[in-house]
Amino acid sequence: MNGSTPWWEAPVASLSEEHKAKARDRQSQLTKPPGSLGQLEDLAIQLAGLQHLDRPCVDRVQISVFAGDHGVVAEGISRFPQSVTAAMVRNFAAGGAAINVLARTLDAALEVINLGTVDHLDDVDAVVHCVQGPGTANFVHEAAMTEAQLLGAFDAGRDSVTRAKAAGMQLFVAGEMGIGNTTAAAALACALTGQSPDDLAGPGTGLDETGVRHKAEVLRRALGCHQGHLDEPLEALRRLGGFEIAAMCGAYIAAAQAGLPVLIDGFISSSAALAAVRICPPARAWMMFGHSSAEPGHALLLRALQADAMLDLGMRLGEGSGAATALPLLRLACHLHNEMATFAEAGVAAG
Amino acid sequence: MNGSTPWWEAPVASLSEEHKAKARDRQSQLTKPPGSLGQLEDLAIQLAGLQHLDRPCVDRVQISVFAGDHGVVAEGISRFPQSVTAAMVRNFAAGGAAINVLARTLDAALEVINLGTVDHLDDVDAVVHCVQGPGTANFVHEAAMTEAQLLGAFDAGRDSVTRAKAAGMQLFVAGEMGIGNTTAAAALACALTGQSPDDLAGPGTGLDETGVRHKAEVLRRALGCHQGHLDEPLEALRRLGGFEIAAMCGAYIAAAQAGLPVLIDGFISSSAALAAVRICPPARAWMMFGHSSAEPGHALLLRALQADAMLDLGMRLGEGSGAATALPLLRLACHLHNEMATFAEAGVAAG
Repeated sequence: MNGSTPWWEAPVASLSEEHKAKARDRQSQLTKPPGSLGQLEDLAIQLAGLQHLDRPCVDRVQISVFAGDHGVVAEGISRFPQSVTAAMVRNFAAGGAAINVLARTLDAALEVINLGTVDHLDDVDAVVHCVQGPGTANFVHEAAMTEAQLLGAFDAGRDSVTRAKAAGMQLFVAGEMGIGNTTAAAALACALTGQSPDDLAGPGTGLDETGVRHKAEVLRRALGCHQGHLDEPLEALRRLGGFEIAAMCGAYIAAAQAGLPVLIDGFISSSAALAAVRICPPARAWMMFGHSSAEPGHALLLRALQADAMLDLGMRLGEGSGAATALPLLRLACHLHNEMATFAEAGVAAG
Repeated sequence: MNGSTPWWEAPVASLSEEHKAKARDRQSQLTKPPGSLGQLEDLAIQLAGLQHLDRPCVDRVQISVFAGDHGVVAEGISRFPQSVTAAMVRNFAAGGAAINVLARTLDAALEVINLGTVDHLDDVDAVVHCVQGPGTANFVHEAAMTEAQLLGAFDAGRDSVTRAKAAGMQLFVAGEMGIGNTTAAAALACALTGQSPDDLAGPGTGLDETGVRHKAEVLRRALGCHQGHLDEPLEALRRLGGFEIAAMCGAYIAAAQAGLPVLIDGFISSSAALAAVRICPPARAWMMFGHSSAEPGHALLLRALQADAMLDLGMRLGEGSGAATALPLLRLACHLHNEMATFAEAGVAAG
């Protein structure tokens, strides 16, 4: 940080209240009962303000999936072996994962960023390598990341946003892959919200009740270990987060600075989003929320973010899949706003 | 009906339990934690069974919007004048309504069927004319439809499904337009469910509290007028429904007979769907439910249909707009099911 102001303390882009007001007025003139498109109206109005456009548009979408391993897996908090993180990155590179199918179907650009896994990925070309180490340290005993690792991951998130912005993207989705990362996200959420491990420990990829109780106990030990050092959100992120969570947090702040709206995914993404808002409160205005995860702690995170999610389909996959699934709703909201006739144009009485 | 069995009493198409079982098995092998795609998994499995396909597909979608006027508007139950029905049909024909934008954006075929409006529509070519009269009779005093009108509307719904099936459509969406039709749908729902007018009268296109109370009173008078004649669902539909509601009901039964899955829209569509299920119980298996309407009575109808809707976005527009908005979710469910790699294909440990 070297004395100069770190990049994430720079101001975020401004929204246009004027475009929001114009969009709200246009919605009232479209050939439909006032308010009858529900949340689709609000989304179009929000986007018009963020994009400073009369006709908002999210045709060009960047999905960036951040992957990293977690030392806390040593505590037995996942039903999948740690090797699955790297194996899934290979699956992303080969095009076989859920997020690949979603990105292809939705005509979204997909980028995968390797931040460091236990199994090596050196031979995988179709991935951006920003390796911070072979996974984080076990945060039950020590900080998950060194300061250099935290900043490296933060910068990797920012750089992905910079590439998206340079490519003319109109919306940014961050996804993640990391065996153990619901535990890291829950630990970070406990630190940021003050809620108890019992409220934030959930089944993740499929723990049973005993597994969830054990996970809560692991979280209690971790919070005990770092007690007194969790008031600063950036420091909480360094101690309890993960490489991919830090990268997403950096991406969300950078996107707000770049004037690029983001569509938040599920539990892990929302923990990163909450960290971003605690570090940089005005970043909140640039966030939309794709779905409500089946992971029970997500409701708490959404409440802390004062957010309503668009979908509630019982999804809990990660990778950005819930946000990607919500993307068509945002696009339809834009098309309806932009292309419907007004009462005057159609010669229909406005009621 | 002339003594022979009416068409709507013919059997519905069979589903394939074998394809459902195979689809369920495939979902368990895809590279994701079991169940982590939530409702998207269930939808793909249901569609595989309905379509008798290993790889379900809803690329080719028919949206048919049925329009008709309602005599009960004389009771002052709508904030829009009755002329808006025909004006909106003209808006459909010109491409300016919400359902036009949705159909274009989603690459779905759109057909508009005029069943009879107060204002004439003779000069509108881009519409299928199946006129049963200049709107229904006021069901506070007499049956909304004659038997001939009911059967004409029923047949119009069936014929739209026949055209969709002949064109190779894989999914059918029925939408509606008709000033006053939340009152007709509420009356029909009262008759079919035995619930009280107070639970089914809602704001519709935007009544205030006084207006909703008046609507409930109009419903009470209508139910009193037809008391003792509402046990047969077809007769309840004739007395309390509308041309477009009868057409949708016929379409839903015909679609089940033709083996064409349907995606149900909101309050009006669901009243027609409930009538269809009461007339032909096996038709229920062919129904999927796009959204939960902001119209308060819709929750009751969904409960009576034992249905969970995909979306809950506060929409209450009709025209098929809620179902159309949910269509991308069904399509994504199919793509995920069909295109994701299995654990074996990707060399990922299955946990």
